[in-house]
Amino acid sequence: MSPVSIDDNEVDIVIGAVNSDLTPFMEKWRPVFSRFHLIIVKDPDLNEELKVSGGFDLDVYTVADMKQVVGSLYDTNLFSGYSCRYFGYIMSRKKYIISIDDDCIPARDNKGDLVDAVDQHLTNLATPATPFFFNTLYDPFCKGVDFVRGYPFSLRSGVKCAMSCGSVLNLPDYDAPTQALKPSQRNTRYVDAVLTVPARTMMPINGINIGFDRELLGPALLPALRLAGEGKFRWETMEDIWCGMCVKVVCDHIGFGVKTGLPYVWRNERGNVVESLKKEWEGVKLMEDVVPFFQSVMLSKEAVSAEDCVAEIAAAVKKQLGPLNPVYSRAADAMMAWIKLWKKAGVGSLSPVA
Amino acid sequence: MSPVSIDDNEVDIVIGAVNSDLTPFMEKWRPVFSRFHLIIVKDPDLNEELKVSGGFDLDVYTVADMKQVVGSLYDTNLFSGYSCRYFGYIMSRKKYIISIDDDCIPARDNKGDLVDAVDQHLTNLATPATPFFFNTLYDPFCKGVDFVRGYPFSLRSGVKCAMSCGSVLNLPDYDAPTQALKPSQRNTRYVDAVLTVPARTMMPINGINIGFDRELLGPALLPALRLAGEGKFRWETMEDIWCGMCVKVVCDHIGFGVKTGLPYVWRNERGNVVESLKKEWEGVKLMEDVVPFFQSVMLSKEAVSAEDCVAEIAAAVKKQLGPLNPVYSRAADAMMAWIKLWKKAGVGSLSPVA
Repeated sequence: MSPVSIDDNEVDIVIGAVNSDLTPFMEKWRPVFSRFHLIIVKDPDLNEELKVSGGFDLDVYTVADMKQVVGSLYDTNLFSGYSCRYFGYIMSRKKYIISIDDDCIPARDNKGDLVDAVDQHLTNLATPATPFFFNTLYDPFCKGVDFVRGYPFSLRSGVKCAMSCGSVLNLPDYDAPTQALKPSQRNTRYVDAVLTVPARTMMPINGINIGFDRELLGPALLPALRLAGEGKFRWETMEDIWCGMCVKVVCDHIGFGVKTGLPYVWRNERGNVVESLKKEWEGVKLMEDVVPFFQSVMLSKEAVSAEDCVAEIAAAVKKQLGPLNPVYSRAADAMMAWIKLWKKAGVGSLSPVA
Repeated sequence: MSPVSIDDNEVDIVIGAVNSDLTPFMEKWRPVFSRFHLIIVKDPDLNEELKVSGGFDLDVYTVADMKQVVGSLYDTNLFSGYSCRYFGYIMSRKKYIISIDDDCIPARDNKGDLVDAVDQHLTNLATPATPFFFNTLYDPFCKGVDFVRGYPFSLRSGVKCAMSCGSVLNLPDYDAPTQALKPSQRNTRYVDAVLTVPARTMMPINGINIGFDRELLGPALLPALRLAGEGKFRWETMEDIWCGMCVKVVCDHIGFGVKTGLPYVWRNERGNVVESLKKEWEGVKLMEDVVPFFQSVMLSKEAVSAEDCVAEIAAAVKKQLGPLNPVYSRAADAMMAWIKLWKKAGVGSLSPVA
């Protein structure tokens, strides 16, 4: 494994538009995004007309496109809210996708410089990950870092990094109860590190600020778990947590890495957490089933691609979690349907997993 | 699990004196160390008289004490070089030990403030660890941090933190080949985070800057693996890497946590790495056996204390690694002997594992 070089035209920036006026967001990101092709997906529940900035190379998709492309293969309700971004993952034909929520703006690092979040995600994805032994100096492929004494040389070449999970300054990614308990707590700590999440360690990936290798992982990034009373605020949703654990299980099984840490984005305040709190407890309770399931699910040797793995996970969800709560059976069905949809509409540049 | 409060008189600072004049070191650390009892152990190979600063509450131990206390139970050659610190672990009667190498001075954080490394180690040890699920916001018990959305509530109380591994600025903890390849590389990145190393993830603990709960882990901190041509520089040694993996296996088995990250210390330049390189490759090669061994060693349900666990690990080392290289059989023997020595001389404040 050596670092790869990523060309700008191998990258799509996918934005789920939950707010109708995207121009403040796009102007803030113009220095970072303008070199890349953008895919903007309008939340199907958004009735107002979408306003986007000029001077970008972009495609906008709406509920009409969803209905046309998806047809009867998938429940388009699953693209509601921030989940609309997943439709962009289907429509992309690029190898890499970066996705950032529309309530986030570029962050500043410890020196006060603006962070180029896309560049950092691509660096994370272009350099190997090291999931089989923990490097106490953090990502050895970051500038100025190497492997610590005692790190086995046989593990130093690492594995392909398939997913890069960024972080959030200001309004951290709390659930509604935590946010309600600490309404004034803000994240001001800029942790200047990237690290590989170790193999067999589960984590909640949040979709606010991510990058991934669509060729390797595409079919695993899917909206499947939708809560009954889910709203438009991140702390009310669980779809990305669910999908993130699918991703981690797939990566662990196939032998890809997941990195977390840099880049940061700055997340603005929004929403009434006390209102959200009335809905959120469902998600919090589900995690008590979901985490032990993903920690223990075993895939077969025959599962050699993300697609294969998602199919096996879906079958296990149906069998093991299905009897506990209908929300899980629906998630399993959505996962199976997603694979069919991916084959029909999402493959594009997809090449066999190396 | 709630945070505990640690009294100054529950703490020993243990310093292995490899340099004969400790006064520059002690003066730099005076603001941090002066509230605590110090145990200074003189490297048995050091012939010059040891110079220490006045105004500290301290005990100094030399090779004469080693011979008297250890008698025929242990090979005192294993206390040579930085390994002399382990004799201090035996002599301590306190619940917590902090140990920092004598070529390190206090570091400064991102704001330019001096880091109180002892205070940070004690904070790490006093607050729970979370080894069963990864918190992408890092240690949720640090000030201003909490659990990220999706973290199961049932895992939020955490487990006892038994070990705190600090970090190094300036001269990072590289092995001799890496140091020789990048002679001018210095670590300038202050990563402002503490994190729990996930369960079942192995890591190389370095003894340069550590804190641990001696009541919980004491018998697992032992000098056992000594290389044939080992010298006085950290990059020539492996004893702490070996002992660190014992510690991690013990913690994973019993259900304690290991944290890594803050606090930083500043490590000064020293040593001729090209000379060291001639000796180091032995250690680098051993890691190819050592890591898979510790990643796969299984302990029985009957092993409920650090002492029990070390005995089982020693037996497994003897059986599985012994045939590969005599250095491993000697390490296994040393581990068994250490347990006897600990029972005779090291128990002190030791109370049953809760």
